[in-house]
Amino acid sequence: MAASATQAVRDLDAAVETQAQAVRKLKENGASKDEITAAVDELKKRKADLAAHKSEKAEEDKGSQKITPWDVQGAVVDGVQQGVDYNKLIDTFGCSPLPQSLIERFEQLTGRKAHMMLRRGMFYAHREFDKILDLYEKKKPFYLYTGRGPSSDALHMGHMVPFIFCQYLQEVFDVPIVIQMTDDEKFLFKDQSLVDSKRFMRENVKDIISVGFNPDKTFIFSNMEYIQYLYPNILEVNKKININQLNNTFGFDDTTIVGKVAFPPVQMVPCFSNTFPHIFGTKKDIPCLIPAAIDQDPYFRLTRNIAGGLKYKKCCTIYSKFFPALQGAGSKMSASVDTSAIFTCDTPKQIAKKVKKYAFSGGRETLEEHREKGGDCEVDVAYQYLTFFLDDDVELRTIHDRYSSGEMLTSEVKDKLIEVLVEFTQKLQARRATVTDAEIDLFCSVRPISYERK
Amino acid sequence: MAASATQAVRDLDAAVETQAQAVRKLKENGASKDEITAAVDELKKRKADLAAHKSEKAEEDKGSQKITPWDVQGAVVDGVQQGVDYNKLIDTFGCSPLPQSLIERFEQLTGRKAHMMLRRGMFYAHREFDKILDLYEKKKPFYLYTGRGPSSDALHMGHMVPFIFCQYLQEVFDVPIVIQMTDDEKFLFKDQSLVDSKRFMRENVKDIISVGFNPDKTFIFSNMEYIQYLYPNILEVNKKININQLNNTFGFDDTTIVGKVAFPPVQMVPCFSNTFPHIFGTKKDIPCLIPAAIDQDPYFRLTRNIAGGLKYKKCCTIYSKFFPALQGAGSKMSASVDTSAIFTCDTPKQIAKKVKKYAFSGGRETLEEHREKGGDCEVDVAYQYLTFFLDDDVELRTIHDRYSSGEMLTSEVKDKLIEVLVEFTQKLQARRATVTDAEIDLFCSVRPISYERK
Repeated sequence: MAASATQAVRDLDAAVETQAQAVRKLKENGASKDEITAAVDELKKRKADLAAHKSEKAEEDKGSQKITPWDVQGAVVDGVQQGVDYNKLIDTFGCSPLPQSLIERFEQLTGRKAHMMLRRGMFYAHREFDKILDLYEKKKPFYLYTGRGPSSDALHMGHMVPFIFCQYLQEVFDVPIVIQMTDDEKFLFKDQSLVDSKRFMRENVKDIISVGFNPDKTFIFSNMEYIQYLYPNILEVNKKININQLNNTFGFDDTTIVGKVAFPPVQMVPCFSNTFPHIFGTKKDIPCLIPAAIDQDPYFRLTRNIAGGLKYKKCCTIYSKFFPALQGAGSKMSASVDTSAIFTCDTPKQIAKKVKKYAFSGGRETLEEHREKGGDCEVDVAYQYLTFFLDDDVELRTIHDRYSSGEMLTSEVKDKLIEVLVEFTQKLQARRATVTDAEIDLFCSVRPISYERK
Repeated sequence: MAASATQAVRDLDAAVETQAQAVRKLKENGASKDEITAAVDELKKRKADLAAHKSEKAEEDKGSQKITPWDVQGAVVDGVQQGVDYNKLIDTFGCSPLPQSLIERFEQLTGRKAHMMLRRGMFYAHREFDKILDLYEKKKPFYLYTGRGPSSDALHMGHMVPFIFCQYLQEVFDVPIVIQMTDDEKFLFKDQSLVDSKRFMRENVKDIISVGFNPDKTFIFSNMEYIQYLYPNILEVNKKININQLNNTFGFDDTTIVGKVAFPPVQMVPCFSNTFPHIFGTKKDIPCLIPAAIDQDPYFRLTRNIAGGLKYKKCCTIYSKFFPALQGAGSKMSASVDTSAIFTCDTPKQIAKKVKKYAFSGGRETLEEHREKGGDCEVDVAYQYLTFFLDDDVELRTIHDRYSSGEMLTSEVKDKLIEVLVEFTQKLQARRATVTDAEIDLFCSVRPISYERK
């Protein structure tokens, strides 16, 4: 039901836009008054139709989940906060579920086992990921694009997910990656100064570098510092979209500050290869693959819609679910709430304490009941985190079965998670300690990067 | 009547904005439901009031003049196109007429005769020009700011007006001037490529330099090239204004392309001295004076409105009337209609031909009638042009009297104009021929410029 209303609004919105353009064209070309009147009447009819469907949809949407790049809220059913409905999200956004066949094709082509985040369904949706595999097969060039909004000194595990996956893809595909640091966005959307944005940016870059990106094929840029390169394509994009389209895509309205409305094009233009002349020269036709959390889809849906008009390639995407907060799927991980997440800078002691104290347990009330009924892996945060970070499928399966049967206790699953997270963070911290200002500057320097595939 | 409606809409709009902010604050601070409901009710009341006044004003505005930075249209009375009503414009925009007393004070303080464009009322309106004279008197620093949208290879006489006046002010005040070339604007508002924008920009800079700006105190910048310096203040401005404010100020709506809506802040930020760190370092408190045509006021009215919230100084302005087209005050000079204007690159022969053939005459139908009734200086384009370019007050007065009395013929006034324009353009062309790429690069280079006054 909601699905059809969503699609209807989307279609009607496009129909209104098409007709509005037709009216403009008629006026520009000095059409007769009758022609213009007829076209305007049709426009009015379409607008009324759109308004009716919008209010119908708004009625349906009451209490349903609301996901934008800045706000993730599950549905509320009978006053109870639900987790995110990921299948519904695919439908709302209009992207596709990632089929097993594509993962198998990925493994065949690359000769590499799919990353645990891929084979376990964390990355679960996409737009034309198959086209990227076609390019890979034909040894044609493409690049990866992802980003990070620097809003705190330290990254948490949720922030690391796209970077871990991107680093893996870069290694497997052997292609360049561009990483956008949206220091401007965080200033505009949060109560954060430009000075803080800049500091957070450099601190976050240290974490990102530590994930193991190839320095020869990785370009990290801050919007504040790279804006002169982004600006020509921002202008091109801004000439192709109107305020109405942004309002519909991102939920803005007339009371929204101009900064928020002007931001989306900044995140859209790295999808076009000529935004990076030092890498791709004047080439406009090198496609990109964007691994990101699914809430970022509105940017790329809109980018794909206008790419043709600019004679650019459509970006391809692969989307992940959200990494849950320690308190469970219904709550939100926040960089400003220390107890909601494990941070890359946490000590082993802090990790142990947070996991033991805050990680939502799928275990039973009493030991007796647990031994009898077993734990619930679906809601157990420790188990869920292990699915992101424990690569050994056999071991994970064993934990699943033993925990579900009640043989394994919550405390034992948590101990395993602590071990895995400590290993991950200790390794990252060791690498991070070696990252110098010069190394940051190198990754961020505007320099030639080879993109041809052999 | 229109005046009061205009002011009422402006006031009500501010009242709605204030109340909307109050509602936001209440929500943020977790106020009680009753408090929020009361505030929202008040907001609704104000919005209804605004809507009523807006429709009243729209009724009044039918057929009245419409002046925006992109569109200059005089009123239509009984189907006849009128010239611009400059006094009404002062009222619509809410700036002040420039009183004779201020011109006299300018002459006293500087010890210089006021420029003909000042003493003859071409520059006729302002916002706090008196504050700039106060600063001058106290030897406190300030700077000049003006701009140009490069939409053609050649500038016409109308384009030259602000530059001639600015060059004079720079010489008299001995202060820095920043000149913004809005290559981005012309791409967004016209069917003009970025490549053309860039070429026009450099060609236009040659003309501007040729006016005689002091290379030690003049910084010319293209938005495309200087955007990284503009961007921090664009973000600051964009966080302070919402879409509604831009719609009201510039007449945008939801069907306006994002590029147009995102442009005004780009023209606003050179009003703030820290936009030019190579000149003013981190100083935020050096005020600027903007000499410009009056249609640019919406930008600076809005800039002044938000300056306080950013802890910046309000910009001061001095506004000129429009330079008339050859065909007269009711028509529009256009860089793309060769016969509408005299261009800086015109040959003496072209100038003579255009003036003789196209300049609207205030003379009479027959020689006999002319000798009897005399010419009308108010509508005679040749005479009007002379008021801009013939510095000799006595000679101009003589022409005025002799033409008005019928003693002097249209052809004789035109001959005088041709002589003056040929002299002006020949001098400019001679200087322009010497402008090298290196000289353009120097004027456009990001370099320290002294602004302290001794």
